[in-house]
Amino acid sequence: MLVQIRKDTLINAVQHVLRAVAVNSPIPILQGIDIHAGTDGIILTASNISMTIQYKIPQDNVSTTVQRAGAVVIPARYFYDVIRKLNNEVVVLELKDKLVLTVMSGGSRVSLCGMDSTEFPSLNNEELYSKRMQINNLMFRSAIKQVAIVASTSETRPVLTGVFFECDNDSLNLIATDGIRLAYQNLHNKNSSNDNFKAIIPAKNLYEISKMLIDDDVTTEIEVSGNRIQFKASGLKVQSALIDGTFPSIKNVVPKSYLCEILVNRIGLLQAVECVTVLASESVIKLVADPNKLKLLSSTAEVGDIENEVSLMEMLGDGFNISLNGKFLIDILRNCDCTSLRLKYAGKNNPIAVLPNDSGISTLFLITPIRTHT
Amino acid sequence: MLVQIRKDTLINAVQHVLRAVAVNSPIPILQGIDIHAGTDGIILTASNISMTIQYKIPQDNVSTTVQRAGAVVIPARYFYDVIRKLNNEVVVLELKDKLVLTVMSGGSRVSLCGMDSTEFPSLNNEELYSKRMQINNLMFRSAIKQVAIVASTSETRPVLTGVFFECDNDSLNLIATDGIRLAYQNLHNKNSSNDNFKAIIPAKNLYEISKMLIDDDVTTEIEVSGNRIQFKASGLKVQSALIDGTFPSIKNVVPKSYLCEILVNRIGLLQAVECVTVLASESVIKLVADPNKLKLLSSTAEVGDIENEVSLMEMLGDGFNISLNGKFLIDILRNCDCTSLRLKYAGKNNPIAVLPNDSGISTLFLITPIRTHT
Repeated sequence: MLVQIRKDTLINAVQHVLRAVAVNSPIPILQGIDIHAGTDGIILTASNISMTIQYKIPQDNVSTTVQRAGAVVIPARYFYDVIRKLNNEVVVLELKDKLVLTVMSGGSRVSLCGMDSTEFPSLNNEELYSKRMQINNLMFRSAIKQVAIVASTSETRPVLTGVFFECDNDSLNLIATDGIRLAYQNLHNKNSSNDNFKAIIPAKNLYEISKMLIDDDVTTEIEVSGNRIQFKASGLKVQSALIDGTFPSIKNVVPKSYLCEILVNRIGLLQAVECVTVLASESVIKLVADPNKLKLLSSTAEVGDIENEVSLMEMLGDGFNISLNGKFLIDILRNCDCTSLRLKYAGKNNPIAVLPNDSGISTLFLITPIRTHT
Repeated sequence: MLVQIRKDTLINAVQHVLRAVAVNSPIPILQGIDIHAGTDGIILTASNISMTIQYKIPQDNVSTTVQRAGAVVIPARYFYDVIRKLNNEVVVLELKDKLVLTVMSGGSRVSLCGMDSTEFPSLNNEELYSKRMQINNLMFRSAIKQVAIVASTSETRPVLTGVFFECDNDSLNLIATDGIRLAYQNLHNKNSSNDNFKAIIPAKNLYEISKMLIDDDVTTEIEVSGNRIQFKASGLKVQSALIDGTFPSIKNVVPKSYLCEILVNRIGLLQAVECVTVLASESVIKLVADPNKLKLLSSTAEVGDIENEVSLMEMLGDGFNISLNGKFLIDILRNCDCTSLRLKYAGKNNPIAVLPNDSGISTLFLITPIRTHT
């Protein structure tokens, strides 16, 4: 391998694949980045088994020139730290020995011991991706931000660590739940094909993927096979494993009817919830809806208590009185983009529903209340 | 106590004293802020015993009005978190019960359980501060940044956790060392009085104090008594305990003569040292000065090695070859403001000297070399 490349181009490519490097893996090769130089450019690949990211730098003979093909896996962290500190704009990568990569730039000469590229878990290119859909990046990022935060972080029920994708004709449903709260979003997706599929994708992979799809106006191609999903954007290919299992149905969880419904300003409610949660013992806050105002209360023994008020824009029903985890409500309120939202109460023993009050995308959040003695 | 105050004014004052709050102290009252409202304004005080910060908000009947005097100590963290989340510009603090402070703002009403203000360790105002000096804030911050970073963080030799102040007629010497490296700065201080004194001040207190003295053109008054030092700026009074003991003399540490001397660009050297330190096993880097260039080398077994070059602006003597801790050199190079500096070599067993090449302030850094077998 003999490659000449602009430092900025190389750093940008490494930053993309770095998200999939298994930094603490007991398997040394997974701590590396596979660098593959061929006639049409340089392909960088990193994989933590659950997710594989491939980034292609095309050969353009201006910022990137491949003079001799070759491949090697090099330790990701050292490589990234070194190239960031180089003080010349152009970097030359040369594989002199079979497994020793030399990085040359200005007055610097770095030798890095690599590993055999053929042993690296490559992207699964042969597999037939039978189902296809397309989604706008901005819409996708916004949906992941709101839904994925609700997924469980505990491995006791692996399906709950994922986000359930349910593609059905023109619509895509995203659902996540950790057993106490639930987020549901229905995207009316004009660009999708007629392929129907269901898949559970690890929430943490979706986070990383959504952070890479930064061009708002661009549409990303999604392909799903039996056990993996692939996202394709310019230069970028990301594959994530799917989670095996059946995602719990939400049909019996969403209340059929509500006893009371209030409409509030999102930012006003967020500030009030953040304020009362400061003094909320075990994050438990109490919401009391009276005509015209929503009271928020919390207390911590031996420290103090808070009472806060938010004015209501609208109220249907007789009011309610419910306790819930304030941090869960903060998560929802922070990640919505709407100006106002509805809280719907369906009785003491049913989850409270939060619905952003904007048109277009249909979104629903549920939070199971906490039973208190007061 | 009944006080009306602008939220921004209150938050700014709390942020100042927060630096001295003993967050994890076993003594509950030290986790608090003493609020003292009197006819001329509100005084906030926090203390972790080693350092006490007092901030005064004058009564101006515009942003701050004291309607009823009073005093209470309230839990710092809760108080700060709550007032930041209030959504009204004006805050009313009222001590209803003897020890319960009510914070009212917009739709929020917070009750915080306080502690008895008379038990709070107050600023030592009576003590006679016999020695006085003045120093420009910009000069002081720059000196602390360069010198305090070298102080030891280990408590095995308490005097080394401090910065030695030696005030002698018109000049102020600052010295810190952790036994392996040393920083010395001589400030020609026109504003100082003729008081001579010596004092060892905890480096971490000096850091916090320097961060508070943000007005570049302002002169801060420093007073020293037998066991404490006081810094006075507008509205602000900070007292720090002094460290007991004798600071080691630097007379026998600074080499009397040098065998070789090179002049290099600071940023160029910094980049090169940062680059080679990435692959430096136990941070050991090797410097080899040849005529016209300084070579930097490092290696980590089974990972690789780096060789870097920096061109010399000037060289006196026959060159040298020395190994030292790269991170120590990075600390010095990052905190200097000069464009070029001199490295002076005094033999294998003597510390290497680093001297910023700018006029005015006289600064010297020493780093003890590491003996290697190669």
